Amino acid sequence: MQMGMIGLGRMGANIVRRLVKDGHECVVYDHNPDAVTVLADEQGTTGVSSLAELRDKLCAPRVVWVMVPAGDITTSVITDLADTLESDDIVIDGGNSYYRDDIAHAKILSEKGIHLLDCGTSGGVWGRERGYCLMIGGDDYAFAHAEPLFITIAPGVDAAPRTLGRHGELAQAEKGYLHCGPCGAGHFVKMVHNGIEYGMMASLAEGLNILHNADIGTRMQKGLETGDAETAPLENPEFYQYDIDIPAVAEVWRRGSVISSWLLDLTASALHESPALSEFAGRVSDSGEGRWTVIAAIDEGVPAPVLTTALYARFASRQLFEFGAKVLSAMRKQFGGHDEKPS
Amino acid sequence: MQMGMIGLGRMGANIVRRLVKDGHECVVYDHNPDAVTVLADEQGTTGVSSLAELRDKLCAPRVVWVMVPAGDITTSVITDLADTLESDDIVIDGGNSYYRDDIAHAKILSEKGIHLLDCGTSGGVWGRERGYCLMIGGDDYAFAHAEPLFITIAPGVDAAPRTLGRHGELAQAEKGYLHCGPCGAGHFVKMVHNGIEYGMMASLAEGLNILHNADIGTRMQKGLETGDAETAPLENPEFYQYDIDIPAVAEVWRRGSVISSWLLDLTASALHESPALSEFAGRVSDSGEGRWTVIAAIDEGVPAPVLTTALYARFASRQLFEFGAKVLSAMRKQFGGHDEKPS
Amino acid sequence: MQMGMIGLGRMGANIVRRLVKDGHECVVYDHNPDAVTVLADEQGTTGVSSLAELRDKLCAPRVVWVMVPAGDITTSVITDLADTLESDDIVIDGGNSYYRDDIAHAKILSEKGIHLLDCGTSGGVWGRERGYCLMIGGDDYAFAHAEPLFITIAPGVDAAPRTLGRHGELAQAEKGYLHCGPCGAGHFVKMVHNGIEYGMMASLAEGLNILHNADIGTRMQKGLETGDAETAPLENPEFYQYDIDIPAVAEVWRRGSVISSWLLDLTASALHESPALSEFAGRVSDSGEGRWTVIAAIDEGVPAPVLTTALYARFASRQLFEFGAKVLSAMRKQFGGHDEKPS
Amino acid sequence: MQMGMIGLGRMGANIVRRLVKDGHECVVYDHNPDAVTVLADEQGTTGVSSLAELRDKLCAPRVVWVMVPAGDITTSVITDLADTLESDDIVIDGGNSYYRDDIAHAKILSEKGIHLLDCGTSGGVWGRERGYCLMIGGDDYAFAHAEPLFITIAPGVDAAPRTLGRHGELAQAEKGYLHCGPCGAGHFVKMVHNGIEYGMMASLAEGLNILHNADIGTRMQKGLETGDAETAPLENPEFYQYDIDIPAVAEVWRRGSVISSWLLDLTASALHESPALSEFAGRVSDSGEGRWTVIAAIDEGVPAPVLTTALYARFASRQLFEFGAKVLSAMRKQFGGHDEKPS
Repeated sequence: MQMGMIGLGRMGANIVRRLVKDGHECVVYDHNPDAVTVLADEQGTTGVSSLAELRDKLCAPRVVWVMVPAGDITTSVITDLADTLESDDIVIDGGNSYYRDDIAHAKILSEKGIHLLDCGTSGGVWGRERGYCLMIGGDDYAFAHAEPLFITIAPGVDAAPRTLGRHGELAQAEKGYLHCGPCGAGHFVKMVHNGIEYGMMASLAEGLNILHNADIGTRMQKGLETGDAETAPLENPEFYQYDIDIPAVAEVWRRGSVISSWLLDLTASALHESPALSEFAGRVSDSGEGRWTVIAAIDEGVPAPVLTTALYARFASRQLFEFGAKVLSAMRKQFGGHDEKPS
Repeated sequence: MQMGMIGLGRMGANIVRRLVKDGHECVVYDHNPDAVTVLADEQGTTGVSSLAELRDKLCAPRVVWVMVPAGDITTSVITDLADTLESDDIVIDGGNSYYRDDIAHAKILSEKGIHLLDCGTSGGVWGRERGYCLMIGGDDYAFAHAEPLFITIAPGVDAAPRTLGRHGELAQAEKGYLHCGPCGAGHFVKMVHNGIEYGMMASLAEGLNILHNADIGTRMQKGLETGDAETAPLENPEFYQYDIDIPAVAEVWRRGSVISSWLLDLTASALHESPALSEFAGRVSDSGEGRWTVIAAIDEGVPAPVLTTALYARFASRQLFEFGAKVLSAMRKQFGGHDEKPS
Repeated sequence: MQMGMIGLGRMGANIVRRLVKDGHECVVYDHNPDAVTVLADEQGTTGVSSLAELRDKLCAPRVVWVMVPAGDITTSVITDLADTLESDDIVIDGGNSYYRDDIAHAKILSEKGIHLLDCGTSGGVWGRERGYCLMIGGDDYAFAHAEPLFITIAPGVDAAPRTLGRHGELAQAEKGYLHCGPCGAGHFVKMVHNGIEYGMMASLAEGLNILHNADIGTRMQKGLETGDAETAPLENPEFYQYDIDIPAVAEVWRRGSVISSWLLDLTASALHESPALSEFAGRVSDSGEGRWTVIAAIDEGVPAPVLTTALYARFASRQLFEFGAKVLSAMRKQFGGHDEKPS
Repeated sequence: MQMGMIGLGRMGANIVRRLVKDGHECVVYDHNPDAVTVLADEQGTTGVSSLAELRDKLCAPRVVWVMVPAGDITTSVITDLADTLESDDIVIDGGNSYYRDDIAHAKILSEKGIHLLDCGTSGGVWGRERGYCLMIGGDDYAFAHAEPLFITIAPGVDAAPRTLGRHGELAQAEKGYLHCGPCGAGHFVKMVHNGIEYGMMASLAEGLNILHNADIGTRMQKGLETGDAETAPLENPEFYQYDIDIPAVAEVWRRGSVISSWLLDLTASALHESPALSEFAGRVSDSGEGRWTVIAAIDEGVPAPVLTTALYARFASRQLFEFGAKVLSAMRKQFGGHDEKPS
């Protein structure tokens, strides 16, 4: 079927490539005309230079996928589409929008009779090949109309062995996409997905960091690591004499272990390329979803200490506790006369 | 090759089954004679009724796998083997021993010239079919001698697609087992593996709990959930109106998402069987490894807030903060005159 | 000077009592006429039965303190005051409003030329006697006009020994009140104060809980506490044989220790009254400020793991992780065949 | 009465000063003879140059206070005292020993009939003036014999107002010292005290850090703070426009607020001296007690997330998560193609 795509960054372009490969017809637009030309040439899609042209090249009811940065840019595109599209058309926001924005966006569109589907899209740079996990919110009409597109974009049932106990007809979720509920439900589920992702990533990172320091007893005994009067000495250096081959450990865990996972696969790959990861400084960014997940937990009044702690570790990696840490050192100086250990 | 197995619980018996199926010859012992008879009949293995008999049925240098509960029982079996086996024989402790105990056990055995391999074994009830991920510590002689057994017990290279960037000859870790270092290194790596497992499990559990409560706005508006004067009301009930099909969400995440993992597979299976999980009370046990991982982090002086928080959530699920919580309520009563909200 | 008080609950009435005792003149109103009558009789204040009457009894520019529950009720009173008061009048919101609401309320009032001071008020049931710590936001005109009231309501300089290094004229903060900045700054500072309060309370509660369980070795050895196959046994029961007199410990810490604090004083008092705190169930409420503090940390992108963890411990004490805990038990059952330990 | 003091650092010397001032007679020893001379001259105490001389100058049964660094040095002094002192003599370990070491030390001493009191001593550099909070473990004979010394060293009842509800004869704890239980109980209680101290300190530090960043909206709008494509932008810059005078806030909280505490007093003093605390780098040391408290919580199986998180924040302030953070950035690069934000 036909689909318009607005935003031809890596994600948008790769979704178009999956659709075209499966026989769908795409009309593509980007605010950068070069991106349009390149993709149109490469994929035999129709490139357009305005939203109006995009509308005119698509048969009604139209389906237009928006794949632009979340926040003000998405809102601006949605607002323009409200002015450009027609009643019964469908807009899919496939970006990382806050689900609360979906509710506002749906209101803008619905005043013109246009439907919004919010579609959380997971898969990163690997999605073109593996397919994208799709978590979709919106009304039934819009979902049903766009479903053939989701079928193509999603990984499909073969991407994982069937869950034990499932028999007979495939459930929707088994094909890699899910209509999660009304407007916002898709991005809500995607938000929580990313919150979980933060926690899993931090779990692996903390564990590997413990392995990385498993030789601290040796280092202390060799004088490579020096304690100071202020800091607790290692009590049992004899128990920390291991020089662990961390890339090999990540690799071995990929087979048969309880923690085998795609994140572990990626970690093994990164460590194989660069065992010390010395090209990284360890300043870890966070996008919005981790923060929103925590705010959802707090609003709901449910504990999410692991997910939150994982988020805070990223903040701390960017030195954002600096003043707080100075306060701690200042207190220690006040009550104990302790000077800071020099770095 | 030949191997003796001591301890014919689920794990020990299944390892024997994998070995026999692949052509190895097993001599099996358990303190429960019935377990010996059953397995010997089923698998065509040689059942014995004493450690001395086990020793006599094996050619030197012998390999004896110990698969009994960690702690005092393992220490007792190791001590008996020190008296029974001969110089150059090899004992493999495949249980969940604390790596510090390995160091003590190796000392007991080495006085008789016997070698210890500590072997962290991950795979649970699925290992018979999937193979076990093996993390091994000990000296090179012992490892090399026992390696054919590890090859059979491990999942093998086909259990996962090859890591991007790896070419040519297979590394040891790619076959699902790894000689991690000297005595204790295997159980150290397994310990950290389980620490990571706790963090990943908690990440999934917290995320699903947030989804489970995504309808709290609806419940509050319907009066199903009542706030009280003491507890903060929900500020934006309109943002929490989602009735999420959690088994379906777990299923959809299995394909193409960043958090796809074996733990997610198991979660999807459990939720498919029982969407509300009402057969569980939510009292979550912990075995030693999570605790030992935290102690290792603290000894090393490295932060592990996610893994630790995951452990504490299990403690809290068993109501072990009860007195602390009473202290909090008592303080609130003291300074604010606040009574506890009735349950 | 004159002041109107709206809301004669414990806090409002006690503030009136402090003001009257120091020679100020109060006009008091509550939606419950009995509360007005009682306080008017007791304190020789002027009771009124409507906001209009309150306005008429006060000389311009008026100062009206609002001490009603935060949220919708405060907004409603503020809106009514916008219709009742006159230009240059001053409204003080002394309740626990969200600082973001202050910004909205100030806008409503400023359209009529009325000023808002947001005043975070700490002191609980003890404030009448000890005075209230006041954190104030708003413009300079309003603050200067109302300052004589703050001087009376605050504890005054004698409430604490002078900070080392401070000399000469008293700073405003030394008298127990502070103009923290523009609209919202007062409640922002009060919000963070309460966030810190949560962290301090949890610190004491966790520590006392560890002392409470310092006899777990004895209990295990006596069979009063039973482990199970699933849960890690206590490795060193000999190190946990202490039967600590917790009320006495709280008392001894009050003198000379680093953690001496008002919260400790209250804890000592509560434990003296009731050493086992058996009248509490341990379901700990939270009001909004702890949640808002965490949201502020997340918005700012700074780590606040201690304050957040303290908040989550309260959620957990109210059994709000139940589904998540069931997920954990279900996963353990799936991969390890572990049944839950019966309670 | 008479007491010997071994170790004339700041704590040891100040305890001698308190004792002498109150009429006790001290015999003092340090491995540095100059320290002995200085204190002997200053305080009219008897300086000695060996443990044997110390023994000879004291009447039996002797009381000898050991105030030297915890760990190997304390063990060495205790061992020497076992060889030097006589049956019925009493050794007080007033340092920061691990309570488990007390149990070992008591065994060494008891073989000679010598008693050990373990005495957790809180008060830091202020103890000379304020008195020291004393938490004591050991047998009744030893405690009773040494009690007159504890009475002098402790702050005494006047150091705090009497706890509401306490009447009649003063309890021991009200005088600022407490016999907490058998050997090790004193250092156990002191250990938990310090764990609580970590949590309270972190609570203040996190809260002040949130206030410190309350102007992040202004900074972003002025371009002083720049986001990047990778990191979530601030959603509501209008809510973060506060330029808070943090020294003044710390000061105002000292009077009438719920969080008034000695740690807050010290913080106010430090911030008054140096509002930006720019002489500190924010590398926060930790001594053993915080770590031991966490290990106790884990051994007991009780949650202590706040105390543990506070400890980890100190580790993180010393950049001890560096490899873990690199792992996180590497994963982000792998799945999302995200580069690290430059610092």
